[in-house]
Amino acid sequence: MQLIIEDGYQLVDGGVCAAAGFVANGCNCGLNPDKNKNDLGMVFCGQECHAAAVYTTNKVKAAPVRVTKEHLTATGGRARAIIVNSKNANAATADGMEKARRMCGLAADRLEIPPEEVLVASTGVIGQTLPIKPVEDHIGQLVSGLSAENHEEAATAIMTTDTVKKEVAVSFELDGKVCRLGGMAKGSGMIHPDMATTLNFITTDAAVSSAMLQKALDDAVKVTYNCLSVDGDTSTNDMVCILASGMAGNAEIAAEGDEYQTFYRALYLVLLNLTRMLAADGEGASKFLECSCTGAPDQETAVIVAKSVICSPLVKSAMFGRDANCGRILCAIGYAKAEFDTDSVSVTLASAAGEVEVCHDGNGIAFSEELASRILAEDDIYILVNLNQGSASAKAWGCDLTYDYVKINADYRS
Amino acid sequence: MQLIIEDGYQLVDGGVCAAAGFVANGCNCGLNPDKNKNDLGMVFCGQECHAAAVYTTNKVKAAPVRVTKEHLTATGGRARAIIVNSKNANAATADGMEKARRMCGLAADRLEIPPEEVLVASTGVIGQTLPIKPVEDHIGQLVSGLSAENHEEAATAIMTTDTVKKEVAVSFELDGKVCRLGGMAKGSGMIHPDMATTLNFITTDAAVSSAMLQKALDDAVKVTYNCLSVDGDTSTNDMVCILASGMAGNAEIAAEGDEYQTFYRALYLVLLNLTRMLAADGEGASKFLECSCTGAPDQETAVIVAKSVICSPLVKSAMFGRDANCGRILCAIGYAKAEFDTDSVSVTLASAAGEVEVCHDGNGIAFSEELASRILAEDDIYILVNLNQGSASAKAWGCDLTYDYVKINADYRS
Repeated sequence: MQLIIEDGYQLVDGGVCAAAGFVANGCNCGLNPDKNKNDLGMVFCGQECHAAAVYTTNKVKAAPVRVTKEHLTATGGRARAIIVNSKNANAATADGMEKARRMCGLAADRLEIPPEEVLVASTGVIGQTLPIKPVEDHIGQLVSGLSAENHEEAATAIMTTDTVKKEVAVSFELDGKVCRLGGMAKGSGMIHPDMATTLNFITTDAAVSSAMLQKALDDAVKVTYNCLSVDGDTSTNDMVCILASGMAGNAEIAAEGDEYQTFYRALYLVLLNLTRMLAADGEGASKFLECSCTGAPDQETAVIVAKSVICSPLVKSAMFGRDANCGRILCAIGYAKAEFDTDSVSVTLASAAGEVEVCHDGNGIAFSEELASRILAEDDIYILVNLNQGSASAKAWGCDLTYDYVKINADYRS
Repeated sequence: MQLIIEDGYQLVDGGVCAAAGFVANGCNCGLNPDKNKNDLGMVFCGQECHAAAVYTTNKVKAAPVRVTKEHLTATGGRARAIIVNSKNANAATADGMEKARRMCGLAADRLEIPPEEVLVASTGVIGQTLPIKPVEDHIGQLVSGLSAENHEEAATAIMTTDTVKKEVAVSFELDGKVCRLGGMAKGSGMIHPDMATTLNFITTDAAVSSAMLQKALDDAVKVTYNCLSVDGDTSTNDMVCILASGMAGNAEIAAEGDEYQTFYRALYLVLLNLTRMLAADGEGASKFLECSCTGAPDQETAVIVAKSVICSPLVKSAMFGRDANCGRILCAIGYAKAEFDTDSVSVTLASAAGEVEVCHDGNGIAFSEELASRILAEDDIYILVNLNQGSASAKAWGCDLTYDYVKINADYRS
């Protein structure tokens, strides 16, 4: 999958450590019985950062989500470290809050910072007690190995059913200073719009106030993570958080304006690429799907239509089967919860192999099945929906529904 | 699967022809290349009936749905015949309305009734032109074979990916007269709450006004078909319609009261049993799932919670894998779009093999995996959710998500 970049921004290496001041590490502490797989990760900044976060909308909020929220409230949007584990979600258990606080305490002691400056996240099985001893036993090793080189160790520590680690970073200029913004993400199943999605940790050395970080994050999540669906299940543990060290030396962004826009775009690009990576690595996925809705009366309608198509199990199954079933796409457009006219809709299927219109003026049309089948044989499929009733547009991302999705989820706990 | 019945009602044979005055038939007209499979069906009543219907909420409404609506409006809720085909949905094509009207016209000519007294329905592939010649060529055969014995021919004519025909009928007393109410349904995929669901044809010989038929249908659909989900896709062709011949001889029910309640309960029982049959025969299903939500602050909340659990792909996959993954059930309860407290929730899994509590006071608890695994090995699984914060309750129905669902839908058109 090709990464998306724009003029004025360059892709750089380093993931969550691309920005000045950030170090990271990951290790296997034993939550995962496979000693070759990291299950405990940390991100740390040498100085205090402005911070912001967006959380799951699930009413069952995992303990680490609640503790992170408490900490950001207590500090007024400041933080210096993130500790995260995989294999156990620390959600829906009687001692969850105690364990989440203990994780922050263990990190804080070693890092010699207040526990409120530590954010905590977990991912894995819901409803099982989190064993804390593995974390206690390995916190020293985790902290002593923190370095700017170890961003991959952290990125692999948050993987669950993910088949690849997800890291992206960009550089850009603010106020004549070179800034960097990068991040890592995990998430493969239990992914659905209308939330903050999965676990995502973003760092930057740009100087940005906590309030403007929060605004940028809220806006960018709406058109990236919240337009992503793998399976329609909104997790209990979702969280996106961002830390800004200010070490790039630019004048702090504390209001909207050109500098804010430049920063926002960097954040958008990193979230956009992570979102696309998450879609491509959806549980069991054999194909990456992008639905763009153009010609919409307003952006909200465009988002709703694109998401409706991306979420349809029947469209997802048809894409797996390389079946250009325009009726299913029309059906999903038709039940999208927005008001628009379906009589002017056109649908085109596209990929590296070409494109073919399968629906025009709201009706199925004759098309070359041979061309359609070549188009759908590719890994990255683009479903282009034009409502032909306005100029607003939006995109949504997902993946096909495969035997492997069912296989992975028929026995996830073991 | 055991049929559900109540005191004062008896299960009877005859399906859509159980009620006095109704005849039916089905045949293969060639829409289905397999000559052994019926694809054209008809229900007819010797005298004019009161009628009512509920339609899909999809904005893309198939032509037959629109024509049926037009006809019931034109007649003020009267009808005498239903013509229906499978294999082609007659949806999202340029000449759909013309073809749907032609089907009614062909039936009306042969039956010697006005075309407005014919209701029409189609099910099958969306977006492909409906060939009308097969219908023209077989309408004579279809009409000449109409009889009270041929209800099964009609019930099989509406099957698509259904593996079994669905028919239920009950008898009951109104006003000292024996009445009958029966129906047939199809539907296996593209089934999701918030609509009228699939194709369902109900007949009764009870005398009931069109207005009261509509009220009873609206109310019963809410707690039966609309609590059913196979895959989250709301079809373009869904329709439930009911015809009442009045031939039982009871005084016409034209207002609410005891007689109306007796009639409503008969309708509810037939729709309930058809709903459960549809769930059990969901595309690729290996298990029938029923989620009951009790202890809810109000019925709406109970419905939303039960549906949220039944719709979760992760819960459905876990049931297929016989995995007592309480975290996924809690997660689905947590993202249900209703306001309630998740801290008092308990969850029990039950089947013919016993029951086991897996969640208490909002948290996962220790349970016997061996017992859970025996319970989940059964075909009919009951997920019992108690919110412990009120006395309202509701049920929702669905099925597990299996390899076969993906297989069936990866290439449905061919």
